[in-house]
Amino acid sequence: MKPLNVGMVGTGLMGRAHTNAFRQAPQFFPLQRRPVLKAVCGRDVQKAQAFAENWGYESVETDWKALVARPDIDLIDIAATNDVHAEIAIAAAKAGKIVMCEKPLGMNPEASLRMVEAVEKAGVANMVWYNYRRAPAVTLAKQLIDSGKLGRIFHYRAKFLQDWTISAEVPQGGAGTWRLDASVAGSGVTGDLLAHCIDTALWLNGSIETVSGMTETFIKQRKDADSGELHEVTIDDASAFLARFSNGSLATFEATRYARGHKALNTFEINGEHASIAWDLHDLHRLQWFDHRDESALRGWRSIHVSEGEHPYLDHWWIPGVQIGFEHTFVHQVADFFTAIAEGTVVGPTFRDALGTDYVTDAVLSSAKTGQWTKVKQA
Amino acid sequence: MKPLNVGMVGTGLMGRAHTNAFRQAPQFFPLQRRPVLKAVCGRDVQKAQAFAENWGYESVETDWKALVARPDIDLIDIAATNDVHAEIAIAAAKAGKIVMCEKPLGMNPEASLRMVEAVEKAGVANMVWYNYRRAPAVTLAKQLIDSGKLGRIFHYRAKFLQDWTISAEVPQGGAGTWRLDASVAGSGVTGDLLAHCIDTALWLNGSIETVSGMTETFIKQRKDADSGELHEVTIDDASAFLARFSNGSLATFEATRYARGHKALNTFEINGEHASIAWDLHDLHRLQWFDHRDESALRGWRSIHVSEGEHPYLDHWWIPGVQIGFEHTFVHQVADFFTAIAEGTVVGPTFRDALGTDYVTDAVLSSAKTGQWTKVKQA
Amino acid sequence: MKPLNVGMVGTGLMGRAHTNAFRQAPQFFPLQRRPVLKAVCGRDVQKAQAFAENWGYESVETDWKALVARPDIDLIDIAATNDVHAEIAIAAAKAGKIVMCEKPLGMNPEASLRMVEAVEKAGVANMVWYNYRRAPAVTLAKQLIDSGKLGRIFHYRAKFLQDWTISAEVPQGGAGTWRLDASVAGSGVTGDLLAHCIDTALWLNGSIETVSGMTETFIKQRKDADSGELHEVTIDDASAFLARFSNGSLATFEATRYARGHKALNTFEINGEHASIAWDLHDLHRLQWFDHRDESALRGWRSIHVSEGEHPYLDHWWIPGVQIGFEHTFVHQVADFFTAIAEGTVVGPTFRDALGTDYVTDAVLSSAKTGQWTKVKQA
Amino acid sequence: MKPLNVGMVGTGLMGRAHTNAFRQAPQFFPLQRRPVLKAVCGRDVQKAQAFAENWGYESVETDWKALVARPDIDLIDIAATNDVHAEIAIAAAKAGKIVMCEKPLGMNPEASLRMVEAVEKAGVANMVWYNYRRAPAVTLAKQLIDSGKLGRIFHYRAKFLQDWTISAEVPQGGAGTWRLDASVAGSGVTGDLLAHCIDTALWLNGSIETVSGMTETFIKQRKDADSGELHEVTIDDASAFLARFSNGSLATFEATRYARGHKALNTFEINGEHASIAWDLHDLHRLQWFDHRDESALRGWRSIHVSEGEHPYLDHWWIPGVQIGFEHTFVHQVADFFTAIAEGTVVGPTFRDALGTDYVTDAVLSSAKTGQWTKVKQA
Repeated sequence: MKPLNVGMVGTGLMGRAHTNAFRQAPQFFPLQRRPVLKAVCGRDVQKAQAFAENWGYESVETDWKALVARPDIDLIDIAATNDVHAEIAIAAAKAGKIVMCEKPLGMNPEASLRMVEAVEKAGVANMVWYNYRRAPAVTLAKQLIDSGKLGRIFHYRAKFLQDWTISAEVPQGGAGTWRLDASVAGSGVTGDLLAHCIDTALWLNGSIETVSGMTETFIKQRKDADSGELHEVTIDDASAFLARFSNGSLATFEATRYARGHKALNTFEINGEHASIAWDLHDLHRLQWFDHRDESALRGWRSIHVSEGEHPYLDHWWIPGVQIGFEHTFVHQVADFFTAIAEGTVVGPTFRDALGTDYVTDAVLSSAKTGQWTKVKQA
Repeated sequence: MKPLNVGMVGTGLMGRAHTNAFRQAPQFFPLQRRPVLKAVCGRDVQKAQAFAENWGYESVETDWKALVARPDIDLIDIAATNDVHAEIAIAAAKAGKIVMCEKPLGMNPEASLRMVEAVEKAGVANMVWYNYRRAPAVTLAKQLIDSGKLGRIFHYRAKFLQDWTISAEVPQGGAGTWRLDASVAGSGVTGDLLAHCIDTALWLNGSIETVSGMTETFIKQRKDADSGELHEVTIDDASAFLARFSNGSLATFEATRYARGHKALNTFEINGEHASIAWDLHDLHRLQWFDHRDESALRGWRSIHVSEGEHPYLDHWWIPGVQIGFEHTFVHQVADFFTAIAEGTVVGPTFRDALGTDYVTDAVLSSAKTGQWTKVKQA
Repeated sequence: MKPLNVGMVGTGLMGRAHTNAFRQAPQFFPLQRRPVLKAVCGRDVQKAQAFAENWGYESVETDWKALVARPDIDLIDIAATNDVHAEIAIAAAKAGKIVMCEKPLGMNPEASLRMVEAVEKAGVANMVWYNYRRAPAVTLAKQLIDSGKLGRIFHYRAKFLQDWTISAEVPQGGAGTWRLDASVAGSGVTGDLLAHCIDTALWLNGSIETVSGMTETFIKQRKDADSGELHEVTIDDASAFLARFSNGSLATFEATRYARGHKALNTFEINGEHASIAWDLHDLHRLQWFDHRDESALRGWRSIHVSEGEHPYLDHWWIPGVQIGFEHTFVHQVADFFTAIAEGTVVGPTFRDALGTDYVTDAVLSSAKTGQWTKVKQA
Repeated sequence: MKPLNVGMVGTGLMGRAHTNAFRQAPQFFPLQRRPVLKAVCGRDVQKAQAFAENWGYESVETDWKALVARPDIDLIDIAATNDVHAEIAIAAAKAGKIVMCEKPLGMNPEASLRMVEAVEKAGVANMVWYNYRRAPAVTLAKQLIDSGKLGRIFHYRAKFLQDWTISAEVPQGGAGTWRLDASVAGSGVTGDLLAHCIDTALWLNGSIETVSGMTETFIKQRKDADSGELHEVTIDDASAFLARFSNGSLATFEATRYARGHKALNTFEINGEHASIAWDLHDLHRLQWFDHRDESALRGWRSIHVSEGEHPYLDHWWIPGVQIGFEHTFVHQVADFFTAIAEGTVVGPTFRDALGTDYVTDAVLSSAKTGQWTKVKQA
């Protein structure tokens, strides 16, 4: 198994999740390329060293440019804040590195487009960490849709609901709360949560043509995490939109961090002529399935416990009836990407796929401002 | 529609439920005999008069013997406490009346047997109000089992869990709490709650051959509802048993009034070679169904919303998607019984069917005392 | 108990549901006025007579004008198709009758306004059959909201999903399918299903200020139920909208008859600062409740089985743990309305309340046409 | 972090699960001793080498005696078939090794007792892999019970239901099906599945005093996995028992591999005076909680999504709302055991704890044979 040297940028939550995936994938999947944890880069050298020691990175960098310049690095993985995605990715591509990037791609579609152009021009493999595609139940949904079992699609519904910013005491900016600072995050829930829903939607149901959006900032001022001063809140706290897909189906999307009782309710439902599917991240190991072709008196929603060997990815894990979790979606992404690299094929979501998601979020934010239905640019 | 004159004994909860059923059945089912609320009998004349006025009974009696003696009464319905079931039923049968009786049948199998002999000797139609058989989802379960869809049966599981007697302050005896007084109720949860489970089980899964039982009285002394004096508690607070059915399947049964959080969790599950079924009174309009013949990757428990016109009884009610409730099980029983009377057929649960249930409860109580597996007498 | 004579217009599903409610209410609720089934009116005399016989109406009319003209009628209940609501209601009001009307009120807001003006000018008690307000779980939700337990409201979400028109073979017009004919129904799902959601929403969460709507007709031509000829479909098959409430909360609403697997999924969720509530008609006896004030490690959505005596309306029915159903919502409406009549008070939803709902549905349809956010007129 | 050298016996499912736990624990938990994958032992040298390569074991042995004899091994982990547990464990203890053993402990209580005596005499740390104790939801249940929140316990109910041996074509003996061969497995579902339920029960609810058991072998003859000859089936296919705990509570237990529709339904429910708890392996990240002290109109079963930082073990993993799975229970066991080793404390389930479980399963099997209630020996 030929090594493939990873250089990680970022030591936060996503740095952990990606690193764990690089470590775990080779034991569970028959990879042709073995991820080697070559270097991790973090601005805080002590934190970076502790991270390296914990996870087994061979070395530490504090400047991502140094990391990108290293000839012993094959792949740059960007798990840093959104505001630096573009610069690092473009540099990495220019340096001929394979590039993986945490979602969303850029701070705005312009930045994302430059990133796409960079990786495509360089001809380097690239992928964005929209990990939920690879929850086995979601992949199974994709297979069912592609098989034609649903028939014509009428409706798509998606939500991503959280409740962690309801308190006015939550500050903005800083380590744990940079997602509330538009200058670092780009946008609020639209780019953070809705983007997940949109990536899944585009994958499952094709392109979105037009949207009508609405956003709101419920708490107008928050303390700065560092200075304690009250600042205007510049992100969107909540975001919802109506949409029409190219396949003629209608959709509603919603994301918020003000839905009391929901920690990470990332959910979709799709209604077809013959069958319907629903999924929910809170029970990610289950898929809800309704098939109108069942004997009529016995029709009902089935709760499929996605843990059988014939379910996507599951033959690599444990036994029927026991569940895998959140972190495995990242492991699957590594497995698929490294296999694609070895085989010279392309696997999504690519940077270009993620640009498509950005075009939707951008149309939503634009529509929310203008009050007009807005056509979505296609990537 | 020829009238059929009803004489009701009892003005409590079951008096209400039965009366409502007599009133409702003709509007919803094409009966050939029309129930006429001729007379209600209650020891407390004022209460009986109020009951008659509320429900439209034409007359009132305070002595059930007078009611039974009336030539204008065709059917005696016994909704009184358990201790008087036998005497009234036997007298009614001797008087040539059709007899309906609230469950359980008698205070003990000997009394029940005399009741059976009385109605059979008199040749009068008879029925016991084990109403849950006629929850549409339970009837659907019966149809599925009879169709052979489950194949060989391996397991049966039933429970009836309540929590209303946990407080030591609940008294025994008296109007609302006579079920805690063995001299009126016969037994505790075994005859009250387990009997429901057993009736359903015998209907769905055939006869029980042998049992090993266990009972417990958690609170040993309670205040008498009238005198306030502390008396020994003579009923069983909780009862559970293992069983073997004649068809070779194994079973567990349990009833209690000490299961915090359950108001009336009357539930069964049956596991067959090819399929399984589960039901729960708390959501009586749903049937859980698992079919191993479903496409393997899509197998899962289906939650069937039993509200379609093709489901049992449902073509007589409303529209798909909206539920009926508890009281409708009684209406269905009236509809089926009155149809059987008109057509000269027999419909269960007959007195003899209920005797079969009593033989099981008796074996359970006996086994709980002796600590031995006990053979069940067959009715 | 003084009688109150009912004249019913219509012998279809809603005629049955209302009539059953008039029959059942007095046995279960302590009414001061007793509903008397005086006359039923239907164009088909045989059908009307059969209906009268089944339900106990004393007489039959075939012309609603004759019914309205009868001095022995106190209350006109309109359970006919939408296109005749206005004419009948206005005539009844002019004749000094109490008026009950099936939802939606008129064919359009102009008609509805004339109806409101008629009943208000005549000073007659009036009510519209938005029955779901009186599902006990929904009424409990109202009590919780009014108690302030939820705090500031951030989000409201409602859906009404069905799947009965997916087949292109379903005809339009005629007895069972007039709801697909805009000239009789006024609109499609917007007036039929969304109207239910909106009535509940306005009651629970106050007025809606502005909406952005989207509608679709998936099947463009259907056979006429009578002639068999292909006609353009003029109703909306699906309808969704974004909304802003006056209290600052954001909302999504959706209704469709193309959501495979859902028979009557009428559902709402409301997210407040401290607590959230959700409900679903498919399990109407349950309320989902999340309270952030619960001990933090033990927070979770509670499934409340709304069957206790202290829950709304339930002390009039059976025992804890057993459910009531769809028809009871109508019984509650009769009980509340007849009590209000006797006491000279007003109880909603009045005609004016229903006009408010019509203004919302009208704004949705208008917005769907113009593609603009539309301000909602207030009733 | 001082190394602690692991020698693993077994390369099957449990060998994988344990090894993964040794690999993962140090990254997520602040261990004082670092597990080092020193050697793996398997009879099939090629399989063992492949296993070693995949997981990073430094060396391979084909004879467990050689492994136990190695001075560079600190801990022997036994993940081999049940029939060799005792011999290996006793030898390892004599060699002064720390011993971990897959459940159940021995082939019978006599063997288990010798194992207990060996580790206690040698004074070596020891643990048995009853992993489900460390599902965070189960640990939370333990905390709630220990806090006294449930009050007096009335009922305990446990089941472990599977359906993988229903087909008569499943052979017995051999690699995948040794659990159907009593000479290798010791017993059928009693020692395999019920043992899990019992370990959890003893931990949560204290000791069991007496049992009445019932077992069944549904399929009497099966083909030998190797020879294809028909042999008598000597294991129990299904096992159920009634029990009385020392704390006065009543219990039902059941395990089977013939419950169509259940892959690994390992579940318990415990009903206390004030509150009840339920859990189910199929959704292991959730705990069901009912608290009678909640405001009465708002009481209901809460579904707690056990994913918050304050829940057991969860501060070491990801973020609220995303779940961990089956394999994490093993990681937690390693974390706790290695911490206990470093600190010189004892953490369960020890060999002696597991002996207690064996005494219960033995009493169940004995009772099933004699038909008598059987007293349980205490470990």
